[in-house]
Amino acid sequence: MIVTPQDLTFDEPLSLTRGGQLDRYTLRVETYGQLNATADNAVLICHALSGDHHAAGRHHPEDKKPGWWDHYIGPDKPIDTNKFFVVSLNNLGGCSGSTGPVSIDPNTGRQWGPEFPAVTVQDWVESQARLADRLGIQTWAAVIGGSLGGMQALQWSIQYPNRLRHCCVIAAAPKLSTQNIAFNEIARQAITRDPEFHEGRYAEHDTLPKSGLSLARMVGHVTYLSDQGLGDKFGRNKQAETQDTFQIESYLRYQGEAFTTRFDANTYVLMTKALDWFDPAGNGKLADVLSRATCSFQVISFSSDWRFSPDRSVEIVNALIQSNHQVSYTCVETDHGHDGFLLPNNHYEQAFAAYLDRIEVSA
Amino acid sequence: MIVTPQDLTFDEPLSLTRGGQLDRYTLRVETYGQLNATADNAVLICHALSGDHHAAGRHHPEDKKPGWWDHYIGPDKPIDTNKFFVVSLNNLGGCSGSTGPVSIDPNTGRQWGPEFPAVTVQDWVESQARLADRLGIQTWAAVIGGSLGGMQALQWSIQYPNRLRHCCVIAAAPKLSTQNIAFNEIARQAITRDPEFHEGRYAEHDTLPKSGLSLARMVGHVTYLSDQGLGDKFGRNKQAETQDTFQIESYLRYQGEAFTTRFDANTYVLMTKALDWFDPAGNGKLADVLSRATCSFQVISFSSDWRFSPDRSVEIVNALIQSNHQVSYTCVETDHGHDGFLLPNNHYEQAFAAYLDRIEVSA
Repeated sequence: MIVTPQDLTFDEPLSLTRGGQLDRYTLRVETYGQLNATADNAVLICHALSGDHHAAGRHHPEDKKPGWWDHYIGPDKPIDTNKFFVVSLNNLGGCSGSTGPVSIDPNTGRQWGPEFPAVTVQDWVESQARLADRLGIQTWAAVIGGSLGGMQALQWSIQYPNRLRHCCVIAAAPKLSTQNIAFNEIARQAITRDPEFHEGRYAEHDTLPKSGLSLARMVGHVTYLSDQGLGDKFGRNKQAETQDTFQIESYLRYQGEAFTTRFDANTYVLMTKALDWFDPAGNGKLADVLSRATCSFQVISFSSDWRFSPDRSVEIVNALIQSNHQVSYTCVETDHGHDGFLLPNNHYEQAFAAYLDRIEVSA
Repeated sequence: MIVTPQDLTFDEPLSLTRGGQLDRYTLRVETYGQLNATADNAVLICHALSGDHHAAGRHHPEDKKPGWWDHYIGPDKPIDTNKFFVVSLNNLGGCSGSTGPVSIDPNTGRQWGPEFPAVTVQDWVESQARLADRLGIQTWAAVIGGSLGGMQALQWSIQYPNRLRHCCVIAAAPKLSTQNIAFNEIARQAITRDPEFHEGRYAEHDTLPKSGLSLARMVGHVTYLSDQGLGDKFGRNKQAETQDTFQIESYLRYQGEAFTTRFDANTYVLMTKALDWFDPAGNGKLADVLSRATCSFQVISFSSDWRFSPDRSVEIVNALIQSNHQVSYTCVETDHGHDGFLLPNNHYEQAFAAYLDRIEVSA
């Protein structure tokens, strides 16, 4: 599947929930499959913290890797592109083509950098609703996301209850725990303490806070994997050359370094803040907030995920039951931790496909 | 209880397991209680990663805080100083008075810094055995430690099986998991990437890698606490002044900052390496290695400890059972995570006291 991203520009100003507005912005989008005549087969994919619009297929035949969810999106895959018209975007504030901290601020002629306004999950849903309008989609057959993407899917069900029929909330939580926020704060501190950060104005200093960003990624990476999974993969094996370094040490440093070539530090700070702030129930009850929703739900968790443990998914399931919603819940047995939502797994695949197969769409 | 540390200097060269030797070194020591005539009532306390010799009592009546294990050491406390002569030391390579990276290298006249030789748990046990010799103690009534201290206690039972009668291994593990090593490596990277680190020669540059060391402590601190405990204490509460900062964020930054005023960066790197390397069974079976031991054991774990989970203590218990040792095991219910081993808890206190009460000593 060869795909080509497209840039869609929106000229109607977008007011942001935490203040300020964007007069004009671009969303980079990929689509897979065909929108049918009644436009009732569209599925929205929401990405996680460091994800992007490139969820499936390849941009060039020689690309080594396909999109990040290629195992689950495509012809005869759970999100079946023979049936669905799949829309995937880089979120507002991202660094993969949509307007964000690395874009030029038209008011100053230089990169937004740290001046890019704070965006929230609500803002993303709003921008995604406008994207739906642009594409001629009144109601999504399903809104689907994992991790921070699952939070967007959940928010869709509350914010635009009449614009989706199904909501798939995967490896997510109704809000971050204190420990989750703590790890995000450590990541942000790693970035902002890097002397090359220059209060976010590193572009003007012609540098990058590579050291801090890679450290932030190392922290994140460990929390995405399970103790068991890391043990199975690396154990206490040493590097061949030097008996003083464990393989896990060089693996982590490599993962951190690699991340700095594809991700922006200000964007990482912005995305982790959006995660921290997500809390649709606030001081109220999740069930009360979810009572606005009218769609059906699928919730999937992963047994060894300790970042967003199965208990957090069960909180969502229980709130959905209390608010009289139809909900299908699966906890997938895996040693892959939070990363399980991205990886091949038969049980996951079957549960996901079984749910999506039942969604009715026009011929 | 007012206590005064003393410095004991050893002139016999100590060969180190990872190469090199120390010709001369000092250990800073505190003792509580009185050694009896037959010297059979001595207890050794081994400290954890960032611990020191000051385990109990106060140095001055006006000290705000007593030693780090004061709740468990003293008259009528579990480690009862009416009965036991308690010895606590700052480990070799430490930064609280014993010879370590902040000491002057007699060969160069300047701080050892990063040139201080690597020390291991075995080296600590060796230096502690010499300390026992100096104090006239042939056999410890008990060697006791939590976390990295528990590893030292376990190593004592293997390395000097005839020099202890009881071994209390608290909140420990038979070796670090891959995830444990990963978090240690992140801490080390935070320190060594700080431009003020200067490859460990920060003293010569008249500076300190405060930013990196505090970041390392933030990472460590989160792993010492449980998700539940953090949630109970801070939840998602915001700071009063600004609604944008969660309390957990400023708490972590404060903890990190405070640590830099009392701990040395090179020492932190050295201590985490000793933790990583500890692996008494190596490629063999733990039960086989422990078959050398002749003492009795108490093993204590803490239900919400995810750094060294109860499963890790059970590995030790099972290996002790397989090697025909007497072992008493308690898992303490607590929300305090790994830090539980330092904190007041009735069940812990009772189990600990019950075991130590049964140890026989001469009048």
